[in-house]
Amino acid sequence: MKINSHYLELQNNYLFSTVAKKTAAFQAANPSLDVLRLSIGDVTLPLCPSVVRALHNATDEMASAATFRGYGPEQGYGFLREALCKYYKGFGVDLEPTEVFVSDGAKSDLGNVLDILSNENSVLIPDPVYPAYLDVNVMLGRRILTVAGNRENGFKPSPEDAPVADIIYICSPNNPTGAAYNRTELKAWVDFALAHGSLILYDAAYEAFIRDNTLPHSIYEIEGSRNCAIELCSFSKTAGFTGTRCGYTVVPHTLVFDGTELNHLWNRRQCTKFNGVPYIVQRAAEAVFSEQGQSEIHSALSYYFDNATTIHEGLNALGIWHTGGVSSPYIWMECPKGLSSWDFFDILLERGNVVGTPGAGFGKQGEGYFRLTAFGDREKTKEAVKRLTAVIQGL
Amino acid sequence: MKINSHYLELQNNYLFSTVAKKTAAFQAANPSLDVLRLSIGDVTLPLCPSVVRALHNATDEMASAATFRGYGPEQGYGFLREALCKYYKGFGVDLEPTEVFVSDGAKSDLGNVLDILSNENSVLIPDPVYPAYLDVNVMLGRRILTVAGNRENGFKPSPEDAPVADIIYICSPNNPTGAAYNRTELKAWVDFALAHGSLILYDAAYEAFIRDNTLPHSIYEIEGSRNCAIELCSFSKTAGFTGTRCGYTVVPHTLVFDGTELNHLWNRRQCTKFNGVPYIVQRAAEAVFSEQGQSEIHSALSYYFDNATTIHEGLNALGIWHTGGVSSPYIWMECPKGLSSWDFFDILLERGNVVGTPGAGFGKQGEGYFRLTAFGDREKTKEAVKRLTAVIQGL
Repeated sequence: MKINSHYLELQNNYLFSTVAKKTAAFQAANPSLDVLRLSIGDVTLPLCPSVVRALHNATDEMASAATFRGYGPEQGYGFLREALCKYYKGFGVDLEPTEVFVSDGAKSDLGNVLDILSNENSVLIPDPVYPAYLDVNVMLGRRILTVAGNRENGFKPSPEDAPVADIIYICSPNNPTGAAYNRTELKAWVDFALAHGSLILYDAAYEAFIRDNTLPHSIYEIEGSRNCAIELCSFSKTAGFTGTRCGYTVVPHTLVFDGTELNHLWNRRQCTKFNGVPYIVQRAAEAVFSEQGQSEIHSALSYYFDNATTIHEGLNALGIWHTGGVSSPYIWMECPKGLSSWDFFDILLERGNVVGTPGAGFGKQGEGYFRLTAFGDREKTKEAVKRLTAVIQGL
Repeated sequence: MKINSHYLELQNNYLFSTVAKKTAAFQAANPSLDVLRLSIGDVTLPLCPSVVRALHNATDEMASAATFRGYGPEQGYGFLREALCKYYKGFGVDLEPTEVFVSDGAKSDLGNVLDILSNENSVLIPDPVYPAYLDVNVMLGRRILTVAGNRENGFKPSPEDAPVADIIYICSPNNPTGAAYNRTELKAWVDFALAHGSLILYDAAYEAFIRDNTLPHSIYEIEGSRNCAIELCSFSKTAGFTGTRCGYTVVPHTLVFDGTELNHLWNRRQCTKFNGVPYIVQRAAEAVFSEQGQSEIHSALSYYFDNATTIHEGLNALGIWHTGGVSSPYIWMECPKGLSSWDFFDILLERGNVVGTPGAGFGKQGEGYFRLTAFGDREKTKEAVKRLTAVIQGL
């Protein structure tokens, strides 16, 4: 029996585990210090009351033979697929419920969707970006190309700078830079994909953070995208579902490659290798779209945005270049004094006892940059920004 | 962009969807008839009180910032991995918590585990068996070999009749035949795998149904298996989790191929392409292993076994050859009068308004056989057996 040897080509140190290890080692060596995290890519506020109520109600249904639910549809229950279609209608996007597949999270589907695509395809990955895009393709031995985000293009890589590739990953608002494409910029990517017969995998995990009304929440707001794009999204950041696990993947019926509907292939994949999301979790996700649920999750997002403002103000006062944090929970800052990402990480941890995430971990173009997040506790975020300020002033 | 063309090699009609379509068409044409199902591979009893309590408690934890849980470990929480190790200790099997990976169900992992294995591997699949084993390998373009289960070997295929292959699927107690390997028979498979450097994927989804104390619940009860086997299991049938989604996969540290620990590769796969099982579901699964939980799930299993007895007695009275139903919820019967599986399906549906599952859908060796299940309601099962009896007597 032979292993998939492409796994041996993976870098051994996954960014987030290295950050965690270094932090733990520092804390162990300095047990009395209060280490603060501006590195958290996880939510900290609890589930909102509407979601909690839905979980309790659905649990009660599962406790009685008359209302118990066994195997659900692999694609997700109709009630949730329909709620999602209604949500998209709010962006002016018409979807069929059969185009929406409920998943256990965008991370799973970002890798799983590759199952239905030939391994011969080349793949284009923005740099910097969420590291899993790279790893899931390395695992398949795919030819991997990159397109650079940098200060000149506002960390929004453009197809003008891009090599032609079969599969194109786009993450907007971007993790880690917080940069979000406008309609014109996204249209350029759609046209590029259509011109070259490419498939876009559009990661919209942070769409709920968009506050600028001119920016698209979904790629399907762009003409032509129904013929070239799969969209992946998640309740994780929108509704605090990181530990509750629910997301969705949209595969339009109009998406045809090699004469075959990708929707049909994805449906077959899910029916064979997946058995759906827990009924109680789907009821919880449905509750996010109630009027009350929407109001509750938006007040949670406001809490995080207040943290983003605190970080912005701190960096502005220091005169440090940064982006993001407006339509995104991430703030992407230049490291001070030309420091490398990891050097600044070490200094900030040792002198300020604050943890951030080194930009270099998200790709070559991230070197010299640093990611801060707005997901923390309010008072701790304020204190962390104070410490960050002191460290940078002392350099 | 090219699709994965192996998907086009899949058979278009998945067994269970064909059964569902034929049943729906019959019901639509005969709306007044009460169609009964002896075809259900799904549980019908509600979640047990201990599990319901755990779900409510965990939901309350998620409702408060102090006890809220965000991203959990991709491999599963320690409390559940440890509960599983303790459960295995009951079979005399010592596992490390790091060898146990919590999943969203055995079906997902039976396909996902192939990610870490080279596509050049050949695969050996018993016939008849759960159809997903075949499909997930067709999707990868693997060379597929089969080994026959038949009346002569009690539907327990033997390595003596098997071609050498890199990956070997075993399902015991078997779906659909209900046949369960004893220690000697399973040892023969372990020895065969060790002799040829093969990997066994052991599907133990029905282990909780084993009532004969001489039969192994886990392949790790067999000497040498820690060097050649991955075990996959599920709470679906054990604790009625078909709609709640939790399972687990055991990858021993001693499992080394190409000089590489499979545990290490699987861990990397899960960290990159999966984000763990909902916290509330893991607490529910943990409750299954409490003393009270065990007592509750065993009374549910007894209910299903009473149904199995009803079916046995009916078939015995008819003098119809059958197996299973003792350490399994499945009864595997010969079709009467030499009828083919699908002919008997049609006759039973039309004349008796009872649905079963044609054996031919599980593989070539299933032709002429039929699967009945013990998962139904008690009174409906009794009535269905009466109708089955009348149909067969009238042939």
